[in-house]
Amino acid sequence: MLNDRLNWRYATKKMDPSKKVSQDKLDRILEAIRLAPTSSGLQPFEVIVVKNPEIREKLREAGNGQGQITDSSAVLVFAAWDTYTDARIDSVLAMTEDQRGMKSDTLTGYFDRLKGIYVPRDARTNFEHAARQAYIGLGLAVTAAAFEEVDATPMEGFDPDRFDAILGLRARGLKTVAILPLGYRAPEGDWLAGARKVRRPMDQFVTVVE
Amino acid sequence: MLNDRLNWRYATKKMDPSKKVSQDKLDRILEAIRLAPTSSGLQPFEVIVVKNPEIREKLREAGNGQGQITDSSAVLVFAAWDTYTDARIDSVLAMTEDQRGMKSDTLTGYFDRLKGIYVPRDARTNFEHAARQAYIGLGLAVTAAAFEEVDATPMEGFDPDRFDAILGLRARGLKTVAILPLGYRAPEGDWLAGARKVRRPMDQFVTVVE
Repeated sequence: MLNDRLNWRYATKKMDPSKKVSQDKLDRILEAIRLAPTSSGLQPFEVIVVKNPEIREKLREAGNGQGQITDSSAVLVFAAWDTYTDARIDSVLAMTEDQRGMKSDTLTGYFDRLKGIYVPRDARTNFEHAARQAYIGLGLAVTAAAFEEVDATPMEGFDPDRFDAILGLRARGLKTVAILPLGYRAPEGDWLAGARKVRRPMDQFVTVVE
Repeated sequence: MLNDRLNWRYATKKMDPSKKVSQDKLDRILEAIRLAPTSSGLQPFEVIVVKNPEIREKLREAGNGQGQITDSSAVLVFAAWDTYTDARIDSVLAMTEDQRGMKSDTLTGYFDRLKGIYVPRDARTNFEHAARQAYIGLGLAVTAAAFEEVDATPMEGFDPDRFDAILGLRARGLKTVAILPLGYRAPEGDWLAGARKVRRPMDQFVTVVE
């Protein structure tokens, strides 16, 4: 069932700007991202949902002119924490205590250890760690879109610094790592729509140690 | 439907070693990882499926003693390419031509541009890029396991160099980035089994630009 959906999807190259993704489909896709597992549950990224046409026009210019950025219904921007800080990790601890309705020395000790490991580390190492977690969310977003029969195009071919500037992300301690336009395919203009999905054969991708 | 499965799953802390994941479930989970989207379709990672008990014992020692490594049915090891090379990118081009049964100057030009961008870049930048793609696969593996009603525990708390040594990965140009034991929960020994799933509220996770 999942694999049927993964076989259905493809990195849509041409979207039909006249077709709009409904808000309830968008909400379920965002919920899948929110539910994505992340390291120690820190969720070290945020999602910016860009619907505004003028801003998407600017993003397209900073995105090698890729048409899906403006032909889609919305662009999901995955922005990772630029580093880990005591305040960020403490806020996850406070949220955990709040949502579970309890405090414990075990939990506090666990988060103290996290802070001891992450906060002294250089910002690049921390950002790369956060970016990896964002990619779990990206994968779940692509999957959720496929379940909603919504087309999606995971993209890295853009200028992250310009994206950050257009969206005002650096002041929030965030850096764009990947984007995902969501919309509906325009198959007649999409060379990839009819192409066979290319993947390494299983025996060149998986090794079994028995 | 997807979100029901994501709500069902949790990072299982205690697995029942007497319950085995069937081969057909494992095969469907691996197929989901194989179908995961990756940047330019390069699939810059491999999956090692470790079933062997003696080797899993060694991995557990290199994994902070975490019991799921030996109590699970199998451990999926996600190992990213240590860098991008002309040979690796050329092999994806050759596979694409083979599976689609055609060559084209457009395709060759696209892969030439990829080589021009990736190969001169430092190995760390390339490895981090490959690691992010592996995390898309990790997210899909967790999702696929949930559809199979198989428990799974995404883990980073291990010594990657020791994992690479135990599994002989460096000679293959691979570096362990994450692992995923697959098995069945032993709820009576698992403090997390009954705990509420903690996530940031949607309004602290998503920003809409309208």
